[in-house]
Amino acid sequence: MTEPRLEDFPARTFDKLRYGDTDRQGHVNNAVFATFMETGRTSVFHNPEASLTRPGHSFVIARLTIDFKAEILWPGRVEIGTCVTAIGRSSVTFFQALFQDQKCVATGQSVVVQVAAETRRSALLDDAARATLTKLLAQPA
Amino acid sequence: MTEPRLEDFPARTFDKLRYGDTDRQGHVNNAVFATFMETGRTSVFHNPEASLTRPGHSFVIARLTIDFKAEILWPGRVEIGTCVTAIGRSSVTFFQALFQDQKCVATGQSVVVQVAAETRRSALLDDAARATLTKLLAQPA
Amino acid sequence: MTEPRLEDFPARTFDKLRYGDTDRQGHVNNAVFATFMETGRTSVFHNPEASLTRPGHSFVIARLTIDFKAEILWPGRVEIGTCVTAIGRSSVTFFQALFQDQKCVATGQSVVVQVAAETRRSALLDDAARATLTKLLAQPA
Amino acid sequence: MTEPRLEDFPARTFDKLRYGDTDRQGHVNNAVFATFMETGRTSVFHNPEASLTRPGHSFVIARLTIDFKAEILWPGRVEIGTCVTAIGRSSVTFFQALFQDQKCVATGQSVVVQVAAETRRSALLDDAARATLTKLLAQPA
Repeated sequence: MTEPRLEDFPARTFDKLRYGDTDRQGHVNNAVFATFMETGRTSVFHNPEASLTRPGHSFVIARLTIDFKAEILWPGRVEIGTCVTAIGRSSVTFFQALFQDQKCVATGQSVVVQVAAETRRSALLDDAARATLTKLLAQPA
Repeated sequence: MTEPRLEDFPARTFDKLRYGDTDRQGHVNNAVFATFMETGRTSVFHNPEASLTRPGHSFVIARLTIDFKAEILWPGRVEIGTCVTAIGRSSVTFFQALFQDQKCVATGQSVVVQVAAETRRSALLDDAARATLTKLLAQPA
Repeated sequence: MTEPRLEDFPARTFDKLRYGDTDRQGHVNNAVFATFMETGRTSVFHNPEASLTRPGHSFVIARLTIDFKAEILWPGRVEIGTCVTAIGRSSVTFFQALFQDQKCVATGQSVVVQVAAETRRSALLDDAARATLTKLLAQPA
Repeated sequence: MTEPRLEDFPARTFDKLRYGDTDRQGHVNNAVFATFMETGRTSVFHNPEASLTRPGHSFVIARLTIDFKAEILWPGRVEIGTCVTAIGRSSVTFFQALFQDQKCVATGQSVVVQVAAETRRSALLDDAARATLTKLLAQPA
């Protein structure tokens, strides 16, 4: 499998590393990778130009897989590439990659489900959401 | 000033250290001390036997001072002692201390203000809250 | 698949929830689930009675998958069950589950690799480590 | 006291807000303010053009005070202004301010001490460090 490149992802954002992201092994703690993945997903869900959030609904994560490829070292920033690989009736599957200094340090997949806030049950994606997510479909690497 | 002892505090709770609390210096990161102080305060505000929280109101922190006396080292737990040193019209002043293996590793002071959720303006403490807080008045060390 | 039970896991530990673990959705943030999984793994690696860590070596995570089954709500604690499902030449595969109030709120799998600190290359598990890990083999649920 | 302005601080940096910085009250958790303050200080200590760190030494925080003036709301970024208000024999006193959308949301003071890594005892600031810190002396607001 070839390595993903940031420019292959339709949605791109970043996080700035913080000193406290590191742990006693000297590198950024593995749980913070999950935070970087979340930053990528929320940049899609809360995109001010095409927000996917609807009153009375929210998106909750059902599954997250992270493949750790290299350490992330403070200081600096992490570039986050996000694309959609599948759109279900009420769920979205994302593929993401993290980069430090142009090098891919992790990839991840996540399944996120729209739920109704009151019932906590899954709620169908509407046409506007499907259209927005369709534009993010890609197959990097 | 003599060193505070956990048993001198009327409210006592703990936090369990997490691997990710550490930073690249090998010890628990300084910002996590603020989290431990918050654990002590919330154990008072959300005490199931005498909760201080009222519908439509919340407590927000106005000032926090932490004196760092020693490193906290993972693994283990931190004991948290909390007492009230002053009760204002809508505010409470806390004195707190953190302990690892019986040793005082930090002390802290914080001022917390009750606000109305809607207006975000300060709201008077009611009699029940004042009575609860009065029981926590102490002057350790 | 039947739901895993805490008592089916040979290694059991816990984390105490912190107020700051929550996010604006009102529940514990998804990245903190990765932290709870780490707490379970480090309780195995740094078990004072049978530590797996060797001078000049460390364990790094290669892959993490989390299946989110229910929200975790503050306050309280999370029970963490950990077992080994496979032992490779230099790697270990864990299966874990998180519980709040006896209810399974998440399961996870992780692959961790022993590396030499200097070269950052994978290093064979020694016999003592293999013996310790073998005692943790289980297939909950 | 007039409100500090970012442009009055000789050292300026930022942090990008993360979804997980928020807590169940809907705003950025108070302990994260301590992290933002740390970001400002480390940008001074680890400035690639004039690093204050010396082999065998590190800077540890002795005291931190934060005055919380307004909520920080996700998403966005926080601008961090940092200046030096006093230089001791082995310690530095910082004054800092946090801004969101040009508004000052918190100010802070911190005392940081240089210690020798091995003895954990305070170690004198050398002339180069004093010269660097002197350039950051200011009295905003």
